[in-house]
Amino acid sequence: MTVGLNVPRSVQWTGQSIILLDQTKLPLEVYYKELKTVTEVWNSIVALEVRGAPAIGITAAFGLVLAAQAAKAEEIEEFFQSFNTAKSYLASSRPTAVNLFWALNRVTAAMQGALSVGEAIALAEAEAIAIQQEDEEVCRAIGEHALTLFNDGDAVLTICNAGSIATARYGTALAPFYVAKEKGLNIKVYASETRPVLQGARLTAWELQQAEVDVTLITDNMAASTIASKSITAIIVGADRIVANGDTANKVGTFGLAILAKHFEIPFYVAAPLSTFDVSLQTGADIVIEERSAEEVTHMQGVRTAPEGIAVYNPAFDVTPHHLITGIITEKGIIRGDFEVEIKHLFL
Amino acid sequence: MTVGLNVPRSVQWTGQSIILLDQTKLPLEVYYKELKTVTEVWNSIVALEVRGAPAIGITAAFGLVLAAQAAKAEEIEEFFQSFNTAKSYLASSRPTAVNLFWALNRVTAAMQGALSVGEAIALAEAEAIAIQQEDEEVCRAIGEHALTLFNDGDAVLTICNAGSIATARYGTALAPFYVAKEKGLNIKVYASETRPVLQGARLTAWELQQAEVDVTLITDNMAASTIASKSITAIIVGADRIVANGDTANKVGTFGLAILAKHFEIPFYVAAPLSTFDVSLQTGADIVIEERSAEEVTHMQGVRTAPEGIAVYNPAFDVTPHHLITGIITEKGIIRGDFEVEIKHLFL
Repeated sequence: MTVGLNVPRSVQWTGQSIILLDQTKLPLEVYYKELKTVTEVWNSIVALEVRGAPAIGITAAFGLVLAAQAAKAEEIEEFFQSFNTAKSYLASSRPTAVNLFWALNRVTAAMQGALSVGEAIALAEAEAIAIQQEDEEVCRAIGEHALTLFNDGDAVLTICNAGSIATARYGTALAPFYVAKEKGLNIKVYASETRPVLQGARLTAWELQQAEVDVTLITDNMAASTIASKSITAIIVGADRIVANGDTANKVGTFGLAILAKHFEIPFYVAAPLSTFDVSLQTGADIVIEERSAEEVTHMQGVRTAPEGIAVYNPAFDVTPHHLITGIITEKGIIRGDFEVEIKHLFL
Repeated sequence: MTVGLNVPRSVQWTGQSIILLDQTKLPLEVYYKELKTVTEVWNSIVALEVRGAPAIGITAAFGLVLAAQAAKAEEIEEFFQSFNTAKSYLASSRPTAVNLFWALNRVTAAMQGALSVGEAIALAEAEAIAIQQEDEEVCRAIGEHALTLFNDGDAVLTICNAGSIATARYGTALAPFYVAKEKGLNIKVYASETRPVLQGARLTAWELQQAEVDVTLITDNMAASTIASKSITAIIVGADRIVANGDTANKVGTFGLAILAKHFEIPFYVAAPLSTFDVSLQTGADIVIEERSAEEVTHMQGVRTAPEGIAVYNPAFDVTPHHLITGIITEKGIIRGDFEVEIKHLFL
């Protein structure tokens, strides 16, 4: 069944360039651009052509390989000087992206033992490829674990895009749907469009459609009606940050879905890799929620749809309290019950 | 405090024309057009320039007056022939609009005793004016009753547009906010934008802003986060149909808000005139929910925002079960508790 399943990838490495899916053009145009220079990589990250923390990290890692390949130096010290300049430059593309710094540092660390420029380049490339492969394995593992929670014929609701194109492949919350498709199971997915930026409509609907997963688009305010009338059996979402007690920050709208799940007595799952946990924070109250510009809400396709001067509240994320979460699915398995204890065990 | 409070009206009668607020142009343009012929009235209703069941009925009633005034007949029988043609024509503008037929029939009935063309025209005009005045009184009464449920400083969430421009004046769910403003009370309103057609963003935000009511716009998926972080004290919504047991059909998204209200332990109110009750249906399960075109969800401002060929579920309404409703506010007062019994009493 796996032959021909088209699970879109946002980043592909050719050996001397990156083939990047331009997510800003989706879903109107499926455009893969070739990035050959570190400047092109920087521009793509800044322009949000690549999004999703893992996908950004992978792109930056390959960007660093491009920088290493392009370094004119023959001496290893001269090479590292030029390389470090490129690294700082890439690190400036999205100043708050943790995965970006992590990936850049990991590639740099892997090169430390190099005795020649050629060896340094080879080590950089091997490490970038490893980062991408590991992320795919993590996502695949999340998908396999998550699929144990679903049955053939289930209908599952999701929000935003915790998908393949935000990661190396498969995604997190969307991973079980791809794995199910590979195994010949039919799971029907309802994608909430996710205002204001429409990641559900633009990205999740598109990428599931590519793999011929059965997906239906709804607006966010149709969730309750859809759960009731379409026999939704579960809700699964990704996460932006999970703190020590299991409270989970994710795209705004997630909290409301968790409350609906409780009301309708269906399970509510969070799917995320260990790298999403931030155990330095004790509860969700410690998470600072980013508020974004009013224009995201007041305009559609550049056209004003709300009156001028209207006040807007536009939080990008909300925090779902742990007691509304049935289980958290990681690459190491599914945790339930006392999340505080279970999360501690994850990091032992 | 009432001096200068600008509560927008969608329909105004000049004596020989209708001044109609073109709601299709809101909020980008506040355009009042003058309708002088029955054809212009028909076109405006068809083009949805006027919306909201009461406002459509009022517009049609005045359209019938325009038809009467324009009838060339001198004999009363010839007059009624021409008049009835105009009535049938107006009735064809929105074939499922109950208020439209009700208003047309009421104007026609009022003219039955007329002995001359002049008297018939005068009776028609008086009845159309009465329909408008009565609707304003009904809305005002709903607003006064509803305001007893709120306190100075409250923050209240609403969805869609159960507003002044959908009625003669004041609206239903929005009526208490205008009455509060007149009385010098400060109630902060959060308007959910109401995808897919954005009645909250385009209409509710605009009309409350006109009256300088403190209003903040959010997207529909921000409701839970807003209730939690902005100390929302109540939710109030309008209704499209309330059946014998209190189950209420209203704009999609209403059901979800009622579930959130229960979770956060805040009251959930429905505001509607007696004309919205349909006691011929026993429960919400008997209400047929209209599904609308996929394009409303897949396009924004005419631009596609979801992939081609994507499946869409687009119910226009949902049904909130009566057990989630704290109270229903009508022009006769507020009913609570056993809605089946209370609704029967309303119609005794």
